[in-house]
Amino acid sequence: MSLPAGSTIGILGGGQLGRMLASAAARLGFDVHVYAPEADAPAARVAAHHVRGAWEDAEALAGFAADCDAVTLEWENVPVGVVEALVAAGTPVHPCARALAMAQDRAAEKRFFEEIGLGVTPWRAVDEPSDLEAALAAFGSDLVLKTRREGYDGKGQARLGPGDDAAKAFAAIGAVPAIAEAVAPFELELSALVVRGQDGEMLAWDTPLNEHEGGILRRSVVPAPVPGEVVEAAQAQAMRLAEALGYVGVLALEFFLLPGGRLLANEFAPRVHNSGHWTPEACETGQFENHIRAVAGWPLRPVTRHHDAEMVNLIGEEGAQGADAYPPGSSLTLYGKRAARKGRKMGHLVRRTGPAFRR
Amino acid sequence: MSLPAGSTIGILGGGQLGRMLASAAARLGFDVHVYAPEADAPAARVAAHHVRGAWEDAEALAGFAADCDAVTLEWENVPVGVVEALVAAGTPVHPCARALAMAQDRAAEKRFFEEIGLGVTPWRAVDEPSDLEAALAAFGSDLVLKTRREGYDGKGQARLGPGDDAAKAFAAIGAVPAIAEAVAPFELELSALVVRGQDGEMLAWDTPLNEHEGGILRRSVVPAPVPGEVVEAAQAQAMRLAEALGYVGVLALEFFLLPGGRLLANEFAPRVHNSGHWTPEACETGQFENHIRAVAGWPLRPVTRHHDAEMVNLIGEEGAQGADAYPPGSSLTLYGKRAARKGRKMGHLVRRTGPAFRR
Repeated sequence: MSLPAGSTIGILGGGQLGRMLASAAARLGFDVHVYAPEADAPAARVAAHHVRGAWEDAEALAGFAADCDAVTLEWENVPVGVVEALVAAGTPVHPCARALAMAQDRAAEKRFFEEIGLGVTPWRAVDEPSDLEAALAAFGSDLVLKTRREGYDGKGQARLGPGDDAAKAFAAIGAVPAIAEAVAPFELELSALVVRGQDGEMLAWDTPLNEHEGGILRRSVVPAPVPGEVVEAAQAQAMRLAEALGYVGVLALEFFLLPGGRLLANEFAPRVHNSGHWTPEACETGQFENHIRAVAGWPLRPVTRHHDAEMVNLIGEEGAQGADAYPPGSSLTLYGKRAARKGRKMGHLVRRTGPAFRR
Repeated sequence: MSLPAGSTIGILGGGQLGRMLASAAARLGFDVHVYAPEADAPAARVAAHHVRGAWEDAEALAGFAADCDAVTLEWENVPVGVVEALVAAGTPVHPCARALAMAQDRAAEKRFFEEIGLGVTPWRAVDEPSDLEAALAAFGSDLVLKTRREGYDGKGQARLGPGDDAAKAFAAIGAVPAIAEAVAPFELELSALVVRGQDGEMLAWDTPLNEHEGGILRRSVVPAPVPGEVVEAAQAQAMRLAEALGYVGVLALEFFLLPGGRLLANEFAPRVHNSGHWTPEACETGQFENHIRAVAGWPLRPVTRHHDAEMVNLIGEEGAQGADAYPPGSSLTLYGKRAARKGRKMGHLVRRTGPAFRR
């Protein structure tokens, strides 16, 4: 199904990813409707229409969907039932409910990674402190305890090692279903960014090196300082995941790279991704446009990278400075958020560091 | 005056230029309010707010301006009195009323070009048929009769030569104040695109070659196939004009290039310009972003061109095709117009034709 120009695309969620998706959709001639619970959502301020409603408000959601020719999402914690209800009522939603459900449950995600042959760090489901103790004993190393659901930017996580109090750590994350992962002795972190069209065509952007600070992405760099085979392996694994899920749209798969070149799949995001924010400036087509193309059933466009680039997030007060504070050699994107809270992603800078040689 | 991020920028006019300006402003974190008489204006559908009112509606305009920290325009026929009233009420407007007035009156524009030393084709004011007869006799060549006001895309124009009926031609353009211009025996058409900041800083994008069909821009190409001195002369003349007007924002000055390399200034647009639509894809910073930066009192960003490029307008039905009809090697922008009327600009394609060598 290819939407005619002038069709309406709905976005579930009103944050910066929705804002950048909405602008990309408008550039292709689409109207955008945003569904978001909050007033004054960043995405809503660049869209034709904002339906403000709770995720539980079936009536508001139905009204929203009735005006949309296709719907996508910008937040991986959109309740799966919302997507299922929209699809049942006849509105196409991409990505699909199954991909969303997988991304919302770290245990299901890990199992699926293993099923399709992706390498993962040793892990165990943790439903009570004794599971955690067993994991500590089995791994014989430090581990990270993560809630199965709703963690992001390092939230809902705790690190502990042999001898630490398992019960206390389990309580600290809220005593909710979790997983324990052995800490990977990684050299660096990468993410593979792929888009899959409704016809099954897949394209991969170059694979950035990602640097985190306090659990939040700080910087992404292309090309990553890794051999070409590693880049290709990461892209191939992300494509395998997209294919296995029958995925439509952009998907990001995050990896740890071990000494020696082995990749461990960490988690995936069923949406455009912060580590791809350099793509509009450095590639023939950016992640936002190709995501919208996939959702609309349009042909994808080439993702050839024409510049080396570095993307730096502006976090908290960094994103609320005077215009003179931002380096003129970098392209600036600010998200229009009203309050510069600590740890909040407020914008990003992309610096083209040179013409690209690895294409 | 440098607006803080999160300020509100108002745009007078709701067409495609306003739409692209609004998206550029949003990317920098601004909120955008659009003032446009028409319902469902393309710019309004990507803005935070649309005030729908007539150009004569002083109350609606005052309400609009009260919510804006600065105002700009996307249409050169915004009544000068509107800008003057907003400024009198305390809202900064860029570009200024004087530049707008100059652009709205072909006779005043020509006189000003001459005053600041720009070459122009021989011309005369035409207020009655006898003026036209005198011009025909004086020029001894074909001429173009143009209404002094409100012509665009070849409208309000007539071409005639020695022996043609002056009274009939004058009647054909509505018997309104006009000018007669000798037809320039030009080799090609160029436009200089410059931006001037509130601090007086000026930058010029590379100067495209422009090809018109039926009075409508069809294609712009960079680099133009002309010597570097011609490019520099065109840019210098546009900067002289911007400086002389105390202009803030993007301005486009259109030229005829005569055999031998002489430039004749034809007309200028006090706004972003169709012949600059390739700049976002091919330059470090595009015309829309730097215009918004100038209006906001922000520092301009570099306009270095990193790709050779070709921009082709999609006119009428060309801009209402299925997605498969557009070449995947070109970047597509559609304006969200509902009806694909004949001669209507519906979108454009930008093709990067190679890495840039002339920087």
